[in-house]
Amino acid sequence: MISKNIKLPPRHIYPLDDWRFVQKKYSPQYLAQDETVFAIANGYLGFRGNHEEGTPVVQRGTFINGFHEQWPIRYGESAYGFAKTGQTMLNVTDSKVIRLYVDDEPFYLPTADLKSYERVLDMKAGTLNRDILWETASGKRVSIRSTRIVSMEHRHVAAISYEVTVLNAPAKLIISSKLRCPTEKLNPQEDKEDPRKSPKFDHSVFVPQVSQVKDQRVLLGHQIRTSGMTLACGVDHEIQTENTYSYKSECYEDSAKIVYSLKAEEGVPFRMIKYMVYHSSRNAPVVELCERTERTLDSVTEDGFEELTEGQQRFMDNFWTNSDIEVSMYRDRRTQQCLRFNLFHILQASARVEGTGIGARGLTGEAYEGHYFWDTEIYLMPFLIYTSPKVAKNLLRFRYSLLDKARKRARELNQKGALFPWRTITGDEASAFFAAGTAQYHINADIMYALRKYVEVTGDEDFLFEYGAEMLIETARFWADLGFYSTNGKDQFHIHGVTGPDEYTAIVNNNAFTNIMARENLRYAVESLELLRKKAPDSFEGLAKDTDLGLEEIEEWRNAAAKMYIPYDEEKGIHPQDDEFLKKEVWDFENTPLENYPLLLHYHPLVIYRFQVIKQADVVMAMFLLGHEFSKEQKKKNFDYYDPLTTGDSSLSSCVYSILAFELGYLDRAMELIKYAAWMDLADVGGNVKDGAHIASMGGTWMAIVYGLAGLRDYGGKISFNPKSPPRTRAVRFPLTVRGKLLEVMIQRDKVTYTLKKGKALTIHHGAEEIKLSEKQPSCIKELGDTN
Amino acid sequence: MISKNIKLPPRHIYPLDDWRFVQKKYSPQYLAQDETVFAIANGYLGFRGNHEEGTPVVQRGTFINGFHEQWPIRYGESAYGFAKTGQTMLNVTDSKVIRLYVDDEPFYLPTADLKSYERVLDMKAGTLNRDILWETASGKRVSIRSTRIVSMEHRHVAAISYEVTVLNAPAKLIISSKLRCPTEKLNPQEDKEDPRKSPKFDHSVFVPQVSQVKDQRVLLGHQIRTSGMTLACGVDHEIQTENTYSYKSECYEDSAKIVYSLKAEEGVPFRMIKYMVYHSSRNAPVVELCERTERTLDSVTEDGFEELTEGQQRFMDNFWTNSDIEVSMYRDRRTQQCLRFNLFHILQASARVEGTGIGARGLTGEAYEGHYFWDTEIYLMPFLIYTSPKVAKNLLRFRYSLLDKARKRARELNQKGALFPWRTITGDEASAFFAAGTAQYHINADIMYALRKYVEVTGDEDFLFEYGAEMLIETARFWADLGFYSTNGKDQFHIHGVTGPDEYTAIVNNNAFTNIMARENLRYAVESLELLRKKAPDSFEGLAKDTDLGLEEIEEWRNAAAKMYIPYDEEKGIHPQDDEFLKKEVWDFENTPLENYPLLLHYHPLVIYRFQVIKQADVVMAMFLLGHEFSKEQKKKNFDYYDPLTTGDSSLSSCVYSILAFELGYLDRAMELIKYAAWMDLADVGGNVKDGAHIASMGGTWMAIVYGLAGLRDYGGKISFNPKSPPRTRAVRFPLTVRGKLLEVMIQRDKVTYTLKKGKALTIHHGAEEIKLSEKQPSCIKELGDTN
Repeated sequence: MISKNIKLPPRHIYPLDDWRFVQKKYSPQYLAQDETVFAIANGYLGFRGNHEEGTPVVQRGTFINGFHEQWPIRYGESAYGFAKTGQTMLNVTDSKVIRLYVDDEPFYLPTADLKSYERVLDMKAGTLNRDILWETASGKRVSIRSTRIVSMEHRHVAAISYEVTVLNAPAKLIISSKLRCPTEKLNPQEDKEDPRKSPKFDHSVFVPQVSQVKDQRVLLGHQIRTSGMTLACGVDHEIQTENTYSYKSECYEDSAKIVYSLKAEEGVPFRMIKYMVYHSSRNAPVVELCERTERTLDSVTEDGFEELTEGQQRFMDNFWTNSDIEVSMYRDRRTQQCLRFNLFHILQASARVEGTGIGARGLTGEAYEGHYFWDTEIYLMPFLIYTSPKVAKNLLRFRYSLLDKARKRARELNQKGALFPWRTITGDEASAFFAAGTAQYHINADIMYALRKYVEVTGDEDFLFEYGAEMLIETARFWADLGFYSTNGKDQFHIHGVTGPDEYTAIVNNNAFTNIMARENLRYAVESLELLRKKAPDSFEGLAKDTDLGLEEIEEWRNAAAKMYIPYDEEKGIHPQDDEFLKKEVWDFENTPLENYPLLLHYHPLVIYRFQVIKQADVVMAMFLLGHEFSKEQKKKNFDYYDPLTTGDSSLSSCVYSILAFELGYLDRAMELIKYAAWMDLADVGGNVKDGAHIASMGGTWMAIVYGLAGLRDYGGKISFNPKSPPRTRAVRFPLTVRGKLLEVMIQRDKVTYTLKKGKALTIHHGAEEIKLSEKQPSCIKELGDTN
Repeated sequence: MISKNIKLPPRHIYPLDDWRFVQKKYSPQYLAQDETVFAIANGYLGFRGNHEEGTPVVQRGTFINGFHEQWPIRYGESAYGFAKTGQTMLNVTDSKVIRLYVDDEPFYLPTADLKSYERVLDMKAGTLNRDILWETASGKRVSIRSTRIVSMEHRHVAAISYEVTVLNAPAKLIISSKLRCPTEKLNPQEDKEDPRKSPKFDHSVFVPQVSQVKDQRVLLGHQIRTSGMTLACGVDHEIQTENTYSYKSECYEDSAKIVYSLKAEEGVPFRMIKYMVYHSSRNAPVVELCERTERTLDSVTEDGFEELTEGQQRFMDNFWTNSDIEVSMYRDRRTQQCLRFNLFHILQASARVEGTGIGARGLTGEAYEGHYFWDTEIYLMPFLIYTSPKVAKNLLRFRYSLLDKARKRARELNQKGALFPWRTITGDEASAFFAAGTAQYHINADIMYALRKYVEVTGDEDFLFEYGAEMLIETARFWADLGFYSTNGKDQFHIHGVTGPDEYTAIVNNNAFTNIMARENLRYAVESLELLRKKAPDSFEGLAKDTDLGLEEIEEWRNAAAKMYIPYDEEKGIHPQDDEFLKKEVWDFENTPLENYPLLLHYHPLVIYRFQVIKQADVVMAMFLLGHEFSKEQKKKNFDYYDPLTTGDSSLSSCVYSILAFELGYLDRAMELIKYAAWMDLADVGGNVKDGAHIASMGGTWMAIVYGLAGLRDYGGKISFNPKSPPRTRAVRFPLTVRGKLLEVMIQRDKVTYTLKKGKALTIHHGAEEIKLSEKQPSCIKELGDTN
């Protein structure tokens, strides 16, 4: 039973605010978490929320999506087909550091006498701001104001405006703006028992190639030792002040600094704008990246900082118009803040994803090595499809680019078709524990599920034909080859030896989730190919030829889907998670002390595997993704059975359980569960926010509102709602983009209003009732009630 | 279906000989295998069959049982409770090398003009002899004769007699006797996919501490870097010649040599005897070991080489009296040679095992890292119990010494009682792949099975009470805690999440073998403790107190045993290997090319696990070990079902399948299978003899003769025979020691003769018929036929 003790951020430190996450007091006890919470990123480039001064710091972080080092995975005992190449997102050149000395006294947060302090993640503006008033030991009052931005508009650009004013006296100021390679020295496969953490590299994986300084501009270029990836990081500075100042530049292989010296006059600000540009590549030479970097620096410095922030504001306005969830709760303003925080961080993880996936922690921390999992397709895609369909398309196209590697991997496993990697950056399987990695074949079906949703909600049939169909062929092929017709005399298609989403149960036969999702994959392949054959026979012929596809193979898939065995226990009326699940002993929850969670850190896998105990939504997940395959009665019985067996050990469960709880009318439980998902990061529910934000759970929170509270169902592209009015919820409003049209849904205590905000016409459903919205009649109000 | 193409050693190179394994021609193509085949050892110290000259060599080898380095196991992805400390038997200081130069021309086998060549593993004498006549390019005929011995009597002592005679002219001779640390430089966790191979260490793990030379005596002392184990290796030389000679000694940290120079007269032999002594320890300082080494050298040089070989002969005579299997086959003398070869190698692996176990490859190679597995208890103990009960006792006492570590390991797995390691040197689990390692909990029951057999056959109840009872308590406890009463309404005791002997099927519920063996373990614990309580109530009370044992716990075990669920398929009439086995797809043997065996080197575990395909005897093993638990009909049906599903990928199957085939009257199949087991090494059936001898299969060969062909059954200490007369077999004769008495069994084509050779009286059974042998009536002859 997922149950957590949530401690909201204390109000005296983190006051209430709808659009901003504010910290009013420097709080060393939250330092590690705040580095994640105050991270800013654009999906390509990300900065952890380290303070400008560089210290104090728990984990310095500058990340580029997909920028990685690779390493040979060593096994205690290896075997044929084990993943060979570890891939780890690198912590790259840190350009954020700006050190300040007043009369030679360093500004250091933990010891500084702070007269005022405010740090703001401004989610409306898309900036991170800090405003400090510091009184030095000698009584000088120093105002330090900074604004940090990672541009959504210009994906290679970030900037910091850093303004220092000595308010009550003149003072000697030194401002040292730095740039440096990471220097941590840790083994890539350090001895650790927490599989969720990331290996670390010796600084020496950065092979220096370029280091140059010219006036206030510095460039460092590196190549990564084994992956061969290239990186250029350039900074340039603009000074706005009426004080007289001078500067000195230093540049080494792995670090550089520009040091500004001045005698600041009383009340006269010194403002430095530091422009930071990153270019990276898998194959372009470093010198070429340096040229690009110079060009980008030229253009961004010419435009200036104000233009950068204005561009950011335009981007953010558009984002919120298409994505915001407005809520009004009785005596609760935190939830609004938290929802926006979650959406904002999804944006930061995904906005400028081009040619990569989305790491499990976005660009906010090193956990899970920056790897791409099913999180993207199952937890993030619904939000992206309904709010930023172009980003969704980019992500699917990225998967398509990995198809050849997926084919190769299937060959390694003696399988036909293609098998996408369970975790990866490059497309090669990077999971070094196959029982909870490669065995999760469901990744194939998850991606195809996202494809279907994308195509159906956006209507982008071209994408289906151009990219999707080929992926559907290879994944369907894989399933047809993996499974077999059981010899139990019942003409059933079985799939053995798989691991479902619940990693506390491994390598089982007929995992219900996997079989249901595989069936859907097979069916969608059949349907899509029939459609293609009908609509574009030439394309179909070409594709069939390229993939050596015969019509009889499509019939095989149709048959495998029709005969797919879905475990069902007549007596209990539930779907067993797999063939053996119900025969296991139930975990002794009563005698498991709270500190033994997550179980994976306190019990050997052999112990965990032996029991009925669930890490994350499995059957319940299937009931959400393909709810139309279950009767209401089955859903209730399944939920009632699995909810008590589910630990909160994964951040991926509570959102999904919440959706089912809404559907089943368990509104109190639904609201409790949604809270665990929504607060995952801001309240550090899992205790590991320091390692990065739980991007998937953030996407899950959106789903819990839209699919849960509003009861959206969209199977086959048919949009229907079944809104609930849970306790303490006054109103909820959110937009959805459906086939290019903008729909707004507003739920109030006793009614729901559907409004077509953009577009000519749209047909939706309120429960079973069809509603046609149009420019003429854009709105429709319905009373709440049981709409089933 | 186990099926192999056996190529016997070619007769023109390896001629027939009953008591010796002879090589008549230097054969580079067999070099690697011969290094294993011609290895000599005493269970403590072992030399691979490298030629004296040191080259050519495939794998230099000098091993001390249990002498290891340890290393932190690195995992691609680690988890709680994974084995942490790798343990690898080291290749230690090599003292065998003797280089010869005639008129400054080095003697080098591959290029030498050999006028005659003979190498003999003399299994009757316990020596390795080589006799060569070499003609140098200048026409000098040089006789080189060597005898190598690892003393059975003096466990720290080995020696080489090396005699050179220039037959037809005088010549300048240089004989360089060397000593050196191994120098291979390989990673302990090298990137490899064959889990059976061993990691290797950098030479630098040998930290030099002592190196000294005095006259012709050299001492090298080392400590091992991480394990801290200590080693002293000393050599001394005795020269017998009428030639005038001189010598020079050199000694470095890691090597040393004594170089003899002489002008050999025509026909006058120069004989060098090189005495080699090894002492090792887990804690004694190197200097102390060096002192011990000096004392041993003093005593062995004083006694001289002839005394050493005479002592060896006495030891061997005694061994063969108690252990030999004599066979007479139609048109087949190879089998006799092969059987003796197998018994001889078991002797070499076990004779002086004191305080250690027996490595999977004895002391003949590095495969499996010198680890101790269940091989000892299940494959070697029967032979040892019936021929060398003291060695059997040593081995059980060694397991007892690991009990505390086994308790600790059980705690790590959140289990009560004790869990012995699947593979180990030190008692710590060293398996880095838990699915085919720690999950093989059956190791506990295997050890207790061997204990029971030892106690029942020897009558050594003292051992049971002093050591066995405590192990029984902790293992029974483990099983009672691991299993649970199923909620299927049938009041059955289930054991989930285990791997049975068949490693091609992993982590299953109710593995039949495991459940049957666990039941036996529980039962034997109950019986033994009741016996102890009756016979020695004070000891019982003491033990109960020490182990916190209450009588109700014994009742729990009795009940768990009584309610133990043994999977049985009514329809097929067979015992499924586990709950899911029969539901799996059958492996496509027909389309698996021969070169894809062993499967583990060509298929991902996820592929193998998904199918009905067996690596090694599992249900069939249970039918051998606890045959009385199965009806004849069940045995037949099980055998008929599992035999076709079983690959020959493990060397542990054919012997066991052979025994069952004998029992079921499948005599042709039995003889075919026994051949695969018997010839495993001499015909290199598995293609990996170069990595070491298959000691377990050798023990299995003995079992196939004694339990198979002679039909011995000994459950509960009741000795019965059911001899078969297979085709082509004229006669088989072997001795057995039962409760201190020596019984001889001779099977001829139509009769069997039981003879009491030593001891007052012994009751045995021929089929169901009781036979009482006594000093007065020592023999009894029975006709063969179906004795069931």
